[in-house]
Amino acid sequence: MSDLKNTISELCQKAKEASHALSLATSETKTLFLGKIAEGLETSKSEIFSANRRDLENGRSQGLSQAMLDRLEINETRMAKMIQGVRDVADLPDPVGQSLKDWDLYNGIHMQKIRVPIGVIGIIYESRPNVTVDAGVLCLKTGNVPVLRGGKEAFQSNQALIAVMQDAAEQVGLPRAVVSFIPTTDREAIPIFCSMDQAIDLMIPRGGYGLIETVVEHARMPVIKHFHGVCHVYVHEHADLAMAESIVLNAKCQRPGVCNALETLLVDSRIAKAFVPQIVKALKEKGVEVLGDSRTSEALEETLNEPESWYMEYLDRILAIRQVDDIKEAVQHINHYGSRHTDTIVTEDESVAEQFFSAVDSASVFWNVSTRFSDGAQFGFGAEIGISTDKIHARGPMGLEELTSYKYVG
Amino acid sequence: MSDLKNTISELCQKAKEASHALSLATSETKTLFLGKIAEGLETSKSEIFSANRRDLENGRSQGLSQAMLDRLEINETRMAKMIQGVRDVADLPDPVGQSLKDWDLYNGIHMQKIRVPIGVIGIIYESRPNVTVDAGVLCLKTGNVPVLRGGKEAFQSNQALIAVMQDAAEQVGLPRAVVSFIPTTDREAIPIFCSMDQAIDLMIPRGGYGLIETVVEHARMPVIKHFHGVCHVYVHEHADLAMAESIVLNAKCQRPGVCNALETLLVDSRIAKAFVPQIVKALKEKGVEVLGDSRTSEALEETLNEPESWYMEYLDRILAIRQVDDIKEAVQHINHYGSRHTDTIVTEDESVAEQFFSAVDSASVFWNVSTRFSDGAQFGFGAEIGISTDKIHARGPMGLEELTSYKYVG
Repeated sequence: MSDLKNTISELCQKAKEASHALSLATSETKTLFLGKIAEGLETSKSEIFSANRRDLENGRSQGLSQAMLDRLEINETRMAKMIQGVRDVADLPDPVGQSLKDWDLYNGIHMQKIRVPIGVIGIIYESRPNVTVDAGVLCLKTGNVPVLRGGKEAFQSNQALIAVMQDAAEQVGLPRAVVSFIPTTDREAIPIFCSMDQAIDLMIPRGGYGLIETVVEHARMPVIKHFHGVCHVYVHEHADLAMAESIVLNAKCQRPGVCNALETLLVDSRIAKAFVPQIVKALKEKGVEVLGDSRTSEALEETLNEPESWYMEYLDRILAIRQVDDIKEAVQHINHYGSRHTDTIVTEDESVAEQFFSAVDSASVFWNVSTRFSDGAQFGFGAEIGISTDKIHARGPMGLEELTSYKYVG
Repeated sequence: MSDLKNTISELCQKAKEASHALSLATSETKTLFLGKIAEGLETSKSEIFSANRRDLENGRSQGLSQAMLDRLEINETRMAKMIQGVRDVADLPDPVGQSLKDWDLYNGIHMQKIRVPIGVIGIIYESRPNVTVDAGVLCLKTGNVPVLRGGKEAFQSNQALIAVMQDAAEQVGLPRAVVSFIPTTDREAIPIFCSMDQAIDLMIPRGGYGLIETVVEHARMPVIKHFHGVCHVYVHEHADLAMAESIVLNAKCQRPGVCNALETLLVDSRIAKAFVPQIVKALKEKGVEVLGDSRTSEALEETLNEPESWYMEYLDRILAIRQVDDIKEAVQHINHYGSRHTDTIVTEDESVAEQFFSAVDSASVFWNVSTRFSDGAQFGFGAEIGISTDKIHARGPMGLEELTSYKYVG
């Protein structure tokens, strides 16, 4: 076995052992633990800032873009937000131990289906160091040991944050390995990490195509992908066009760089002459570049660039518009080119909305609601580890309950 | 692309297209569909029997064991049972469309979490041809398209059964591809099938180590393994020994070849002198070969063969016995050597049972109950597709609800 494989294998094995201890911790211990993490972040601020400065310097010298550097930075505001986030999760009810079902068998045996932790959860993510703490405490709250693998750009920051969480574990009598971290930036670590199905019960990759592809190719354990969002708004023949405009502008412009932002607008051909010029004008005023198919250009009486592909997730102030002849064509487009994330219909006709709800195969399907509402906080989940683009175990915004499994006791 | 890859890819693509139609079918249509399958099996009996005879002849000429030939056979009794099974599933309530949660967002948007089909489910299984129908109809009942890959020994029987199901689909206006079948016995088909994550939403492998290993290595889509059962009974210091005896005999002898049968008996060292001779005598009377560690031999005052490994699933009239000093050691053994399937403690002490419930990381954890009760029918699920040994999405007996996903509509 290579040194790297040895290191990762030992670390995962220790995480598994630690997960038995953590799964027996009471809700009180876990709340105390999270409180200690919040305190530790407070008292270790200067170490964390200085580790973060080293990452930023490295990043600058390696020519990272300003956007990347911005994502990497931990400043006072972000630190305060991170600490508040930990306290908020600490205050949420603990789903572990809940009885999901309770019944008597014909022979008098009393059965219960009880929520339990999943065990050890691998999380592979990219640049933002706050994910280390945000995702880490969600796992800990639900009695799961996180094994974290962050982006190489944030390596120093992540190590400083991990040390705080491990110190907090020790303070409440838990093994340090209840928070584990792959201690290398070597790219080879990912396929090795993905082969550790004896120790890791679930792998959650959060990132772009390259990362997801590597994990899907190599993972032997279950994977819940947090992949991209190719989200659609379909403006139906009987839409309120003022409402359609405000939904499209919110969905595209409020925060274009996130997965629940709008990427493709489908316009019913029966209202294209009225709606296309209106929405293109409004989008351009907001600085959005508009792409479109030839029929959209026709309706606009102006030639738009055609999109390279309808599969594109722009994550930017770019929107592609396509005309469709009816709801059937809209649904076909969405189920073919979408990423099963979030899709909206704008219509005044409830029966058409019902059809859309049934036929669109996405995690969140909305009627006269912006795609931006597909979000754990908006849904009232208290916290989310991300948005699953898979259909197994957790679909859409993934909160605390989705970080649990169950067992039958009887 | 090879011919085989082309064939499988086209078939999976068609299954995916058919799944959009099936997901829109009403409960009434699905019930009618299952009724037509039951009728079709009745009227096509002679074709099915003659296909099965061809499989049996091939099997005999290839030197299959009597046990294998027995598993392969479809006789009148089994056919009647299969048909009754289809009718029973048809009569179960349809979980699709159920509202799992219902709430208003702060801004007045009404959200619902609705059960939906998973989509396309690949099922890879071994010799028994009844699985084709049993697993197939559970998928169909829940609006999922099954893509089935059975064992090569049952190839003719499976094709005959599939034809009946496809004819029934046509009779109720659904595409034939709502029941799909990998039309080759080529072993190379499995890795190719496992690469079809664009079309297959979930893969369920049911079988032994070789099959599970191939699927885990190659699958790009989510997998729910139905793997082996290394089940334990731990007889605690304060057990009722007469009860312990009857539980052990039931768990080991009632049907030794199934995954919820007992494989390893853990005896508390404080009662070993009393219990080991009693249970070994009772087991030998039932024709069970007993293996044991050296301390068990000592308690018995007779030298037992030691088991080759505590990981063994015998699926036969063989039982391994080990002494442990307390519940902690029992739990450690189970969590280390077990397969997270089903484990039982026998004790009169409720607080010890509670400890066992919390600490044992298995799908079913029982107190004074035989491991054989870990079963969908016993649990009152109406039907089960198998017993999941994974912790994600479905754990333990997997019924209709576990064959669904959900979406948020709002």
